[in-house]
Amino acid sequence: MTLEILAMNRFDPARTAKVDGVTQGLLDRRAQTFGPASVLFYERPIHMVSAHGVFMQAADGTRYLDVYNNVPSVGHCHPKVVEAMARQAAVLNIHTRYLYDNVHAYAERLLATLPETLAHLMLTCTGTESNDLALRLAANWTGAEGFVVTETAYHGNSSAVTAISPSSMPGRALPAHVRAIPAPDAYRRPTNDVGADFAADLDRAIHELKASGAGFAGFVADSIFSSDGIYADPPGFLKAAIEVVQRHGGLFIADEVQPGFGRTGDGFWGFERHGVVPDIVTMGKPMGNGYPMGGVAVRADILQSFCDSVGYFNTFGGSPVAAAAGLAVLDAIEEDGLIGNAKDVGTYLMMRLRDLARRRPAIGDVRGAGLFVGLEFVSDPVAKTPDAALASRAINGLRDRRILIGAAGPYGNTLKIRPPLPFARYNADFFVEALDDVLSGEPA
Amino acid sequence: MTLEILAMNRFDPARTAKVDGVTQGLLDRRAQTFGPASVLFYERPIHMVSAHGVFMQAADGTRYLDVYNNVPSVGHCHPKVVEAMARQAAVLNIHTRYLYDNVHAYAERLLATLPETLAHLMLTCTGTESNDLALRLAANWTGAEGFVVTETAYHGNSSAVTAISPSSMPGRALPAHVRAIPAPDAYRRPTNDVGADFAADLDRAIHELKASGAGFAGFVADSIFSSDGIYADPPGFLKAAIEVVQRHGGLFIADEVQPGFGRTGDGFWGFERHGVVPDIVTMGKPMGNGYPMGGVAVRADILQSFCDSVGYFNTFGGSPVAAAAGLAVLDAIEEDGLIGNAKDVGTYLMMRLRDLARRRPAIGDVRGAGLFVGLEFVSDPVAKTPDAALASRAINGLRDRRILIGAAGPYGNTLKIRPPLPFARYNADFFVEALDDVLSGEPA
Repeated sequence: MTLEILAMNRFDPARTAKVDGVTQGLLDRRAQTFGPASVLFYERPIHMVSAHGVFMQAADGTRYLDVYNNVPSVGHCHPKVVEAMARQAAVLNIHTRYLYDNVHAYAERLLATLPETLAHLMLTCTGTESNDLALRLAANWTGAEGFVVTETAYHGNSSAVTAISPSSMPGRALPAHVRAIPAPDAYRRPTNDVGADFAADLDRAIHELKASGAGFAGFVADSIFSSDGIYADPPGFLKAAIEVVQRHGGLFIADEVQPGFGRTGDGFWGFERHGVVPDIVTMGKPMGNGYPMGGVAVRADILQSFCDSVGYFNTFGGSPVAAAAGLAVLDAIEEDGLIGNAKDVGTYLMMRLRDLARRRPAIGDVRGAGLFVGLEFVSDPVAKTPDAALASRAINGLRDRRILIGAAGPYGNTLKIRPPLPFARYNADFFVEALDDVLSGEPA
Repeated sequence: MTLEILAMNRFDPARTAKVDGVTQGLLDRRAQTFGPASVLFYERPIHMVSAHGVFMQAADGTRYLDVYNNVPSVGHCHPKVVEAMARQAAVLNIHTRYLYDNVHAYAERLLATLPETLAHLMLTCTGTESNDLALRLAANWTGAEGFVVTETAYHGNSSAVTAISPSSMPGRALPAHVRAIPAPDAYRRPTNDVGADFAADLDRAIHELKASGAGFAGFVADSIFSSDGIYADPPGFLKAAIEVVQRHGGLFIADEVQPGFGRTGDGFWGFERHGVVPDIVTMGKPMGNGYPMGGVAVRADILQSFCDSVGYFNTFGGSPVAAAAGLAVLDAIEEDGLIGNAKDVGTYLMMRLRDLARRRPAIGDVRGAGLFVGLEFVSDPVAKTPDAALASRAINGLRDRRILIGAAGPYGNTLKIRPPLPFARYNADFFVEALDDVLSGEPA
């Protein structure tokens, strides 16, 4: 997540009223052990004790509806995933240098969801490791160093991946081998053809990289543009951009950490909505429903070239326990009908939010796909002036109404609506009504 | 692990005799899903089905003594760790932006094992993520880019960490900001003072980095020099080198992925044997006994400076499940007396191996600390000619005698003896006698 956004909604001991003794004790121990790296959500942090499905339970007895967390994608503590993990951990948990049964079964099922050209799977532990590896694969394949991303992109936290994450370096110049282009934002940059504009920006950036001597290795994009503020429509708008990537001899790396595993409701992967085929697909957060897992699906020729050079081995990646957790997540997505649910409830939720927007001029835009929806607050609907302060008040107001949510985008004014996938219509109703109530307390 | 070493002992379908039908089926599925990235141990790969304590069980009914794997450090599938992980995964598994109880307890206990100046803990998912973060912390603190490592060092697999892992780039020039110095190898480079020689090499490398304009950010070393071939003695030899680091204004990053968590038998951390205090300590493999966990302990001032700049957040790092697994590992080390056991059994094992070396001239050197022992094969004991072919035959001969082991070092001739820590004296006897038996079939 971007630091700017977080800064708006982080706990700050200097400006927070007294909390209860137990919470204060935890805060003191956090400060002591984690120091300044201890960043907590909310003006008054929440002490959590348990979570199930789409709900999280706090120590004070409050049950929160989770409209934010996408790691527990098939639902918090899904019993099938927990059981699969526990059962396997008791029997065998080792690296992939020995043969064992379930990792092939997992790889086969996951690869079956992907375009055929993405023939092989590499298993890692996090989305960061996946994106870091993808950068290495692309640089090795193209012999070039340059990458293009969007202006508020976040792709992870390693050295190399931070370099392609402008949102981690607000206000600072990007490294010479990285170019950032504006997000495909049809709300703030009205256009007849968002895809053509986006492709033209990309083409310009690639020309710059080539002129600089860095060359063009690849374009890295999350097809839902999560940290940029969530841009989904119209489906297919990415096509023109990917044609530009191919014309310039670079690779399209689809970062599916956010849109993947059914979230966008139109298929298993976010890029499917756009009818494009990536050269590399990277995965993370929802893959193990909390078990640390990541992956990279890649074309056979790209992988062969990499293995002829340096190769790759990940100690924990693809362990029998990771494979068991991953298989259980795939089972849950299928058996619980979560892709269809994301489509159905996501469509219903957007409809209700757009209804609300007609009555609440502070809501400037509602957009998204499946259960990944962005809702933009503006202080002036005509000028579209971003209202980050209202987003912050809404986040805390919703928390008071037992709902967990966060913000995204360059202005921090966009609610990031991204619940666990078993989110039901009545959960959507509860959320929309609470949001309406929060806004009713705001000046019109 | 280094690619060169692995190449000696990897499965190669082109030169391997027929395997049974089930194994062939698994091999085919691996090749299909993982492609060329599927690298397996052994000329005939082993199909594993379960593991407990220091033993691993194959599908054909063979029970192997594990003398190699250090991830299942407190013993394969330790029941306390499995139970703690399973219990917590069923209740709450979320990121560190909310408060919950066990992560502070874990951080406090882990920090209590470290020097007081290492005030704070950052939690990651792997040793790679930890080392990548350490490089960023050091570069931010010093404003310099240059790092010194040893010639066959391996520190992980991200872009930035591969750059400081010469063993991942055999035969290729290091990046301009990295210098590699010879390992502290008193066997092949006889000296009166291994520490003074090592410090002089380091001083020279730092001067080179400064002259190059890269500057000096830090010295990264694993105090047992695992992939270099295992160099432990005399205790304290690192002191002079660390004084050099401090004199030049750089940081000492102790990579404890290999020697940490009690392995060297003289304390909780490998660097303790040398009486030195690192500025940053990185952790990985044994931390969660197979649950993907890593960590970085760091001085408060270094962390504050980093958080004032870019900051860090790791989605899976420090989750309640990771904390539960980590706490159970600390409990197991303590309750099972594993540090004392590493000291006792390690000393006994080295004594028996040195006895054997007196009768077997092919054993050129036996060295190590606790349960991390290197045994070097030579074809000529006077010239100390490395005998990698014998190491390969020994690895496969030991496998035929139901023992799992691997090799290390720049020549691939050093057995890496690194079993799970509950390794008992009778396990050591079994191993030494099997090794003797393997060598009895060799020409004298």
